[in-house]
Amino acid sequence: MRAKDSAFEADRESLLDIAALRADTPGCELVVHLNNSGCGLLATPVLNTMLDHLHLESRIGGYEASAARADGVRAFYTEIALLIGCRPENIAFAGSATHAYATALSAIPFVAGDVILTTRNDFISNQIAFLSLRKRFGVQIVHAPDTPEGGVDVPAMAALMREHRPRLVAATHIPTNSGLVQPVAEIGRHCRELDLLYLVDACQSVGQYPIDVTEIGCDLLTSTCRKFLRGPRGSGFLYVSDRVLRAGYEPLFIDMHGARWTAPGEYERSATAARFEEWEFPYATVLGCAAAVSYARGVGIEAISERTPALAARLREGLRAVDGVRVLDRGPQLGALVTFGIAGWEAAPFKAALDARGVNSALSFREFAQYDFGDKDVDWCLRLSPHYYNTEGEIDRVAAMVAELAR
Amino acid sequence: MRAKDSAFEADRESLLDIAALRADTPGCELVVHLNNSGCGLLATPVLNTMLDHLHLESRIGGYEASAARADGVRAFYTEIALLIGCRPENIAFAGSATHAYATALSAIPFVAGDVILTTRNDFISNQIAFLSLRKRFGVQIVHAPDTPEGGVDVPAMAALMREHRPRLVAATHIPTNSGLVQPVAEIGRHCRELDLLYLVDACQSVGQYPIDVTEIGCDLLTSTCRKFLRGPRGSGFLYVSDRVLRAGYEPLFIDMHGARWTAPGEYERSATAARFEEWEFPYATVLGCAAAVSYARGVGIEAISERTPALAARLREGLRAVDGVRVLDRGPQLGALVTFGIAGWEAAPFKAALDARGVNSALSFREFAQYDFGDKDVDWCLRLSPHYYNTEGEIDRVAAMVAELAR
Repeated sequence: MRAKDSAFEADRESLLDIAALRADTPGCELVVHLNNSGCGLLATPVLNTMLDHLHLESRIGGYEASAARADGVRAFYTEIALLIGCRPENIAFAGSATHAYATALSAIPFVAGDVILTTRNDFISNQIAFLSLRKRFGVQIVHAPDTPEGGVDVPAMAALMREHRPRLVAATHIPTNSGLVQPVAEIGRHCRELDLLYLVDACQSVGQYPIDVTEIGCDLLTSTCRKFLRGPRGSGFLYVSDRVLRAGYEPLFIDMHGARWTAPGEYERSATAARFEEWEFPYATVLGCAAAVSYARGVGIEAISERTPALAARLREGLRAVDGVRVLDRGPQLGALVTFGIAGWEAAPFKAALDARGVNSALSFREFAQYDFGDKDVDWCLRLSPHYYNTEGEIDRVAAMVAELAR
Repeated sequence: MRAKDSAFEADRESLLDIAALRADTPGCELVVHLNNSGCGLLATPVLNTMLDHLHLESRIGGYEASAARADGVRAFYTEIALLIGCRPENIAFAGSATHAYATALSAIPFVAGDVILTTRNDFISNQIAFLSLRKRFGVQIVHAPDTPEGGVDVPAMAALMREHRPRLVAATHIPTNSGLVQPVAEIGRHCRELDLLYLVDACQSVGQYPIDVTEIGCDLLTSTCRKFLRGPRGSGFLYVSDRVLRAGYEPLFIDMHGARWTAPGEYERSATAARFEEWEFPYATVLGCAAAVSYARGVGIEAISERTPALAARLREGLRAVDGVRVLDRGPQLGALVTFGIAGWEAAPFKAALDARGVNSALSFREFAQYDFGDKDVDWCLRLSPHYYNTEGEIDRVAAMVAELAR
């Protein structure tokens, strides 16, 4: 019982009541969930919010249920606004972060020769979208170089901004394929100075770190709700700055929710970020998101941002001590994603070995991170991502388990 | 108890066991649901499928739960394929019909001067999307005229096809703002003859009528699952023909699910309609859709297509007999959407009067149907849309209620 005892000792030192938070999280009894950068475990209040709404829909009708819960739906916007430091009118719901990202990109009327300036660690789906924009409209994609220690070289990126005057600057706060935390606020200061449109993918950082869109200096920011916010699958949001709203950006496929059809040949876009939404909403999911953000704020994002990356650091330390393990995370700041390779194993059997031991993990492949994995010269890695409700005991047990498997 | 008795009499004549189907539908006990063209009532097996999956997610993790239910997820594709007469590889899940429609449009590389040929009764969000494409790319929008009796004039539309050689022909099978059923297969025969790209919005017809994409002759077809299929909110699908897949159409914002990132500057799109999907799925919703389609096929689409429009016809007949009521549905074929105006009432109070009597309905406004409501010279209408689980007794009671309110 040593691992368990040490977990309890560590818990007592934490600002958070880990036992209570785990009691709120049914999955904690069944699995060691180290796949929070895939999808966090639902807390009971979030689950119940969704179940209640589905029951209500079945009793009184889908439209009638959303009308009855209009206050709860509005709470989605106020909760996210409080979370990231903006007004509710700056927030659009989306079915995923990728959908939010695509909708944001669709608002930019790219023409041949426009430059998109990004990094070597932007999320795969964003990179593919840029390539598609290149194919369709002839935009040019420029990747800022990394520093030797890892992470984007901000002065070099700023020089590229001045050289190319990009139509869009895009950065991913925390890539999905490593623990790297990119200096998005430093990049943002240059974007503001040069008045460049700046889009941040904060999928892996929202819910893990405090996010302030003014401090980041972004025009657009996207996130999922299912990862460190522990919200439902199929949910995300787009932040749209007042600057972008005032400048008249609107998504290419604006609909009857984002605009009013004012005359046969005319429409009028919404004044708010609603112009980036679609008319149809998965209301149980939206309400679940509001509950998840409320729950996260109740736990305290500051406290989470201390504990969660610290658990990852502890895991990294444990793994670094294992012969045959190569921890792949590089950069001046590392978050809650721990990535590593292990000698003598193929990807699928290694993950299956952890599955069999009740540990939830994820695999990343070269194909998900062409630049980063190319630089690191790896074809795959295992990704473990703790959250605040994990215990130090779980972390230590998993490190020991990997040591056992590495033999 | 006369109304109830007559309902039971009628039920005995039906091919369907209405009492059993109502017992499967918790909402039937609480409301007279005549808002199926907004959102159908969930059947218990559909509700339970969703609840079960959310519970599973909370117990073992969101990614782990979708992996465990991979067979159920595959069933979504096979069920839809069986429903509309294609292969599972032709189906993409979408968070809404509008999203499916936008994704389909995004695959067409419109350039200035391209013509979109559509009708006067295409869905508002589609019309707004066309206007946005006009603004962004300079496409030309041509509306085929209606016949005097209502509904598109197919020979005139065919003449416009030959005149303009449109980049896209678009038709809505059943508009959201009237009972009209458009002759989409007749339009399709001309599109196939002239080899024109043909997109059909079947949002209000899927689940109400048998749909065969080969018979319709469409290249792309979109639908929601929440209306006459009685699926979850936040769900829809896109059918993509083999012809379109082979021709290499791909959505503008293709992602890591729709494509493989094969090299830093290259990606390879999926061979199937998966290229039109996003990586993230609301799995409880997807499984709920599969259950809903399976349920609808179990009830029998043929039987539904006899009963549901017949209930609407009975309601229309009842309403036509009321002084001060103007039934607005026009055209050679009318489906399950009944729209009417009533003298002496404003929109909101009239709907509220029905709400107060336990009847679920919806309002449509001029702004939702600029052409159709302009032609009819109305600013709003009430929309009642029965489904097979409604009883003749309910229909007759609601007609009597409207007569009472019209006094």
